[in-house]
Amino acid sequence: GAVEVSVRSPIACWFSAMLYCFGGSVLSSLMLAEPPIGFLAKGTNILLASSVWYLVFYCPEDIFYRCLAFLPLRLLVAGMKEVTRTWKITAGVVHADSHFKDAWLVMVAVGWARGAGGGLISNFEQLVRGIWKPETNELLKMSYPVKVTLIGAVLFTLQHSQYLPIARHNLMFLYTIFLVVSKVTMMLTRSATFPLAPFEAALGHMFFGLQKTPSKVKGEGAASSNGSSVCDRSSSDQHRDGVKKRQAKKTD
Amino acid sequence: GAVEVSVRSPIACWFSAMLYCFGGSVLSSLMLAEPPIGFLAKGTNILLASSVWYLVFYCPEDIFYRCLAFLPLRLLVAGMKEVTRTWKITAGVVHADSHFKDAWLVMVAVGWARGAGGGLISNFEQLVRGIWKPETNELLKMSYPVKVTLIGAVLFTLQHSQYLPIARHNLMFLYTIFLVVSKVTMMLTRSATFPLAPFEAALGHMFFGLQKTPSKVKGEGAASSNGSSVCDRSSSDQHRDGVKKRQAKKTD
Amino acid sequence: GAVEVSVRSPIACWFSAMLYCFGGSVLSSLMLAEPPIGFLAKGTNILLASSVWYLVFYCPEDIFYRCLAFLPLRLLVAGMKEVTRTWKITAGVVHADSHFKDAWLVMVAVGWARGAGGGLISNFEQLVRGIWKPETNELLKMSYPVKVTLIGAVLFTLQHSQYLPIARHNLMFLYTIFLVVSKVTMMLTRSATFPLAPFEAALGHMFFGLQKTPSKVKGEGAASSNGSSVCDRSSSDQHRDGVKKRQAKKTD
Repeated sequence: GAVEVSVRSPIACWFSAMLYCFGGSVLSSLMLAEPPIGFLAKGTNILLASSVWYLVFYCPEDIFYRCLAFLPLRLLVAGMKEVTRTWKITAGVVHADSHFKDAWLVMVAVGWARGAGGGLISNFEQLVRGIWKPETNELLKMSYPVKVTLIGAVLFTLQHSQYLPIARHNLMFLYTIFLVVSKVTMMLTRSATFPLAPFEAALGHMFFGLQKTPSKVKGEGAASSNGSSVCDRSSSDQHRDGVKKRQAKKTD
Repeated sequence: GAVEVSVRSPIACWFSAMLYCFGGSVLSSLMLAEPPIGFLAKGTNILLASSVWYLVFYCPEDIFYRCLAFLPLRLLVAGMKEVTRTWKITAGVVHADSHFKDAWLVMVAVGWARGAGGGLISNFEQLVRGIWKPETNELLKMSYPVKVTLIGAVLFTLQHSQYLPIARHNLMFLYTIFLVVSKVTMMLTRSATFPLAPFEAALGHMFFGLQKTPSKVKGEGAASSNGSSVCDRSSSDQHRDGVKKRQAKKTD
Repeated sequence: GAVEVSVRSPIACWFSAMLYCFGGSVLSSLMLAEPPIGFLAKGTNILLASSVWYLVFYCPEDIFYRCLAFLPLRLLVAGMKEVTRTWKITAGVVHADSHFKDAWLVMVAVGWARGAGGGLISNFEQLVRGIWKPETNELLKMSYPVKVTLIGAVLFTLQHSQYLPIARHNLMFLYTIFLVVSKVTMMLTRSATFPLAPFEAALGHMFFGLQKTPSKVKGEGAASSNGSSVCDRSSSDQHRDGVKKRQAKKTD
């Protein structure tokens, strides 16, 4: 319904797109009691994101969106998005550490929020567009980016606390490679199987009991089908994704 | 349903009325990471708003409310409310500027939030009363005060950034005159046509494309009918409005 | 539905349990513009609450939960919970006073939020589990702990402002005795009549008018039946309560 919203109320549409782009920044600011509208102060970022938003939604005959939908370009943009994700997580972890000394849970939480913020506050972002789906949220059914960001946040926190004997730039390099390769593979094969699904199932099996495995697997299946619908999602959502991608390109 | 709420739970009713009166203060505090309950520290304001709230809801035989519903008194109170709106917007813009230097988007956002806060958080204010209408919010369908406050916030920000060659007190004077005159006209004619509707339609036409104009106009029509229902709204809502108006009178 | 959530998404379940345990801390931090994730920095508390959460939900054959459901143990745990409530309220009132000088409404609000936080944000805690019940919130239909915490917050604020000629430790002692005795009585008799219900009805009668008394009494009846359902609530909710109780035991 994003196109409809863009017609009815450009302001709600713009605000929703901004929340999607800068959700991580907003959420982590809220968590650390910093001004959540700080992102509006970065003029260049806002200008770039807004112009992409404008081109995507209001460009005559959807020229801009059609360019973005061209596969090689989409791969490039998606790859860049994943690169910036690494940067965001690292920044979040370091920032949290400067507020709370040695509080590793806080570091994980802020790193996660910074990296996957748009997803985590999706309920409230939908509310801006007049949609309210209480029965789905990213904590109940984690999508692929949210999961992978959580893993990243844990890894970088361990590294920051010197529990992981690896230099930060090496870890960042390896993690980014993993992100880009898995994302591109998922886009090319149009599958949405989480690369670490067997690992995750084993973990759930080990910690949360045997009897839960069937439903766990079912849950995974649901998550996968949700993931694939992400790939095949409608044009309107793609629009918003385009905004996000461009935004990523710029931050890069 | 406000009367019913007032019977079932005076505390929820009081909290909802306070959110309506001080919503702008709460919202702008949240945005700038200041304590959102700061408004409770201003004893006199709270006392006055609470006593009006008490008189409106629990006065025997609704005497107080009937007085307020008397047309000339309503005009006076509504006029005063618009006067305080100007003060609130200016205060918000200046306050935001002291936090973020030269971030004009932040200034617009805080000025807007301070001036039209009660409307912008209406979804959460309704939640306190047990009502939840996700499909309507002030960003999707802006009501007249919210629109006019946005324009005001933009004007005062431009003035504050010295892009507008006019002294502040002149701008405040002109803007207040415009607010009061348009509000009184709307109340007397019982029409809810936004005075700048043609201007707005032209703007939408120019920036957001030709093909959107019909639905835009339809959207305007919906907003108008919404606005007229505001004029004819039921006694219970008027009650809450009375609280707001008196509150405005006091701040004035 | 808590058991189902625990199977589908351990992370949402954990987060929901943490919100329930540390809700007061989160809410009062938000109110005073302090980092709401500060509670994650207290490693020991989190570790204890998490281990209780883990044992309650994932212990084979529900051994841990069955132990907790044993009546004398439940009485002990519930008593301890009430003892910590007194501490939380006092801490909240003092903390608020250090931010805002002599703002007694702020003191009441923060003391109340700290003591009954889990209840007050229950709407958002349910949202994490994918449940959304806008028509019920603790302000509309206050449950017993929320009411009693409000009274406590008012009393401690009065004491702190030296309007109440009683030493703080005496007031804390008396209030705790009252809390524990009324809680244990309510658990043993399985009744949920609020001990101060006649007092409350008289107050409502006096301040909010005669004609409201019948519906007020009806409201009370609804609150009572709600309260009794708290006692008979399903196993899954008890689970979460167990987490809370243990948490209380530890803080004690």
